[in-house]
Amino acid sequence: MVKTVLIVCDGMGDLPDAKGRTPLSAAKKPNMDRLAAEGISGLMHTIGRGIIPGSDTAHLALFGYDPRCYYSGRGVFEALGANLKLEHGDVAFRCNFATVGKGMGIIDRRAGRIDSAEAKVLGKALDGMKIDGVKVVFKPTVEHRAALVLRGKGLSCRITDADPHEGEKVKVLAVKPLDKSKEAARTAKVLNEFVKRSYEILERHPLNLKRKKAGLLTANIALPRGAGIYEKPPLLKERFGVKAGCVAGGALYKGVAKFVGMDVVDVKGATGALDTDVMAKGKAALALLRKGYDLVFVHVKGTDNCGHDGDFDGKKKMIERIDAMVGLLVKGCGKDVCIAITADHTTSCMKKRHSSEPTPFALWGPGIRRDEVRKFDELSCEKGGLGQFIGLDVMPMLLDLMNKEHVYGA
Amino acid sequence: MVKTVLIVCDGMGDLPDAKGRTPLSAAKKPNMDRLAAEGISGLMHTIGRGIIPGSDTAHLALFGYDPRCYYSGRGVFEALGANLKLEHGDVAFRCNFATVGKGMGIIDRRAGRIDSAEAKVLGKALDGMKIDGVKVVFKPTVEHRAALVLRGKGLSCRITDADPHEGEKVKVLAVKPLDKSKEAARTAKVLNEFVKRSYEILERHPLNLKRKKAGLLTANIALPRGAGIYEKPPLLKERFGVKAGCVAGGALYKGVAKFVGMDVVDVKGATGALDTDVMAKGKAALALLRKGYDLVFVHVKGTDNCGHDGDFDGKKKMIERIDAMVGLLVKGCGKDVCIAITADHTTSCMKKRHSSEPTPFALWGPGIRRDEVRKFDELSCEKGGLGQFIGLDVMPMLLDLMNKEHVYGA
Repeated sequence: MVKTVLIVCDGMGDLPDAKGRTPLSAAKKPNMDRLAAEGISGLMHTIGRGIIPGSDTAHLALFGYDPRCYYSGRGVFEALGANLKLEHGDVAFRCNFATVGKGMGIIDRRAGRIDSAEAKVLGKALDGMKIDGVKVVFKPTVEHRAALVLRGKGLSCRITDADPHEGEKVKVLAVKPLDKSKEAARTAKVLNEFVKRSYEILERHPLNLKRKKAGLLTANIALPRGAGIYEKPPLLKERFGVKAGCVAGGALYKGVAKFVGMDVVDVKGATGALDTDVMAKGKAALALLRKGYDLVFVHVKGTDNCGHDGDFDGKKKMIERIDAMVGLLVKGCGKDVCIAITADHTTSCMKKRHSSEPTPFALWGPGIRRDEVRKFDELSCEKGGLGQFIGLDVMPMLLDLMNKEHVYGA
Repeated sequence: MVKTVLIVCDGMGDLPDAKGRTPLSAAKKPNMDRLAAEGISGLMHTIGRGIIPGSDTAHLALFGYDPRCYYSGRGVFEALGANLKLEHGDVAFRCNFATVGKGMGIIDRRAGRIDSAEAKVLGKALDGMKIDGVKVVFKPTVEHRAALVLRGKGLSCRITDADPHEGEKVKVLAVKPLDKSKEAARTAKVLNEFVKRSYEILERHPLNLKRKKAGLLTANIALPRGAGIYEKPPLLKERFGVKAGCVAGGALYKGVAKFVGMDVVDVKGATGALDTDVMAKGKAALALLRKGYDLVFVHVKGTDNCGHDGDFDGKKKMIERIDAMVGLLVKGCGKDVCIAITADHTTSCMKKRHSSEPTPFALWGPGIRRDEVRKFDELSCEKGGLGQFIGLDVMPMLLDLMNKEHVYGA
């Protein structure tokens, strides 16, 4: 039985700089190049040509779930990634603790990047409240970040954000329904009430009074965004008979993995940031293979962070660190394992944002056709034997390699 | 007027062996290479990326019929291939004569590969019966193989198989409806009754009593599978104004060809197996061109058989024999003929099954763009000027070459 490791280096694809180099083409990455040289390569349009993928929609597509059917908002994945259990019909949000002044003007969207321990104490004050028959579940994650779930009958995710997204000098937004349903109207009302109460509770919370005395910014409001409704999808196991495991640091990626039914392992040192322990991730992936998982998804986030910061050299170095993990996997995975490596999307160091250009993709392992590509980068993979394809093509290809695909017809 | 020959070598695509060779890359096939060198090549995903095609769905796609619309089960094509005339609403099946014990346990799924003449006699005893107002049409084809048609109002193909598919030591399956419609429930009931009666009739059939005495396995039951409902599609002639003919040995391929409205010629020595007379097929194709057919479909099955048997050398030799037929066609077809050559899917000698990798495709003839591909094999066609495309793209390309395509717009 062939097993598969799918390595996704977030935002690893890039656009050329003035010298025509990308972080990937400039990096020393003998192991990624080996995958390309001994395997088959191509370019992947994760969602479709010209469409800029979000990290959540991109991963859904890679896992074989068309985001046009399975995506309503990132809140669902944030909540699952925060280890909350969701029930069918729950509406979930990503939240920030923030600092606001008296007129609801934003002073700091991240409440002075309050530390996780303090956020946990404040979060308890918001968790469990009831608003108009709707139960509120609130769970802080890392620093100012938190997940919020509204649970009750007749809720909708068709509402706007309370978080104005922009930095300072704007006001908290009143949440509005995005359609004319009574569900959307009701959910907007409940969410506005939640934001109001969060201010009332947090503004006079002893911990915030202490912070104020110490001259620190208070975390005196919770700002939800990214409403998504949870509707349980058919899981990977049910759809394809695949036992899948996830090695990731970032909550969003863990959340998407859980959504499709992957088992998420906690890896010490996997932070979802530049300081992540990539080798620990590689070892965790090998352990999952040994435990009998058919499909192991490994996510590394740092490349995307560098792209957003416009840090070409940082991104190049992160790629070189990931390459060492790839080497560990190639060496340790055994003869019955295929490795696929790609990015979920392109993050341009120049544009400091996601962009729509396709990402390099390489597939390596037993019984895979080869091509003449020798390097793993944007330009080399253009000439690959896989040609150009979309993210939703990936899972069927991997399933066939794993002998989990069925013949269509007879 | 340009005419086209479409040569489909069943399962000819393959995956590389340890030395990186495929049967196609290892074979001496100067004529196929000539088509690639003088024409344009590419890779075809017959159904779509990562999807493993069946032979029936693959040929539907190649003929321009989306299997998602036109495919309900192989039974239809088996019945048409067995020269049965189908009526709109008929539900058709592939059947095996099999040997069962008293408790309906399978002793031999192929009734000791009973010969065609004896099967014909037994088949007569099943043909024409009436069950609950449904007419039964039963026709043996080759050895243990037969086609079955249920004709009547309110039938459905949404039912399971009676044939357990696996070899020995399993029981005949009770047919079950696959949805909650009354049509499916009724059809399942009728089919179960047919299987029961086939046992009652065949078990005491004089021919079987004779076989028993002679120590041979009896063909004491008929086991249907692959239910498909016949709904008459628009034919090639109506859709495209194309007069199409078919040269094939296997019943399934003849069936798909008839389904889309091709005239099927009987070729002496075309067996649908390794011993087929490929040169006779080539001559028959040339004869159809001379008779004014616009499109001639030539199917050769042997390559697929070798793939399923894991016989690399046999597949290579079969390709070399097919190449001689290609030479005959190239030489004899005249200046106004295009030849397209491909496989319906990849059949891996290593995996001994169909797999999803795309198949080589070459197009040769007057007025066709050329590329730099010089050999006809999996690796060479990767670099072809046709790029990568799907099976449903083929017919529009051929129609345009034949001047049968219309401008879309003005």
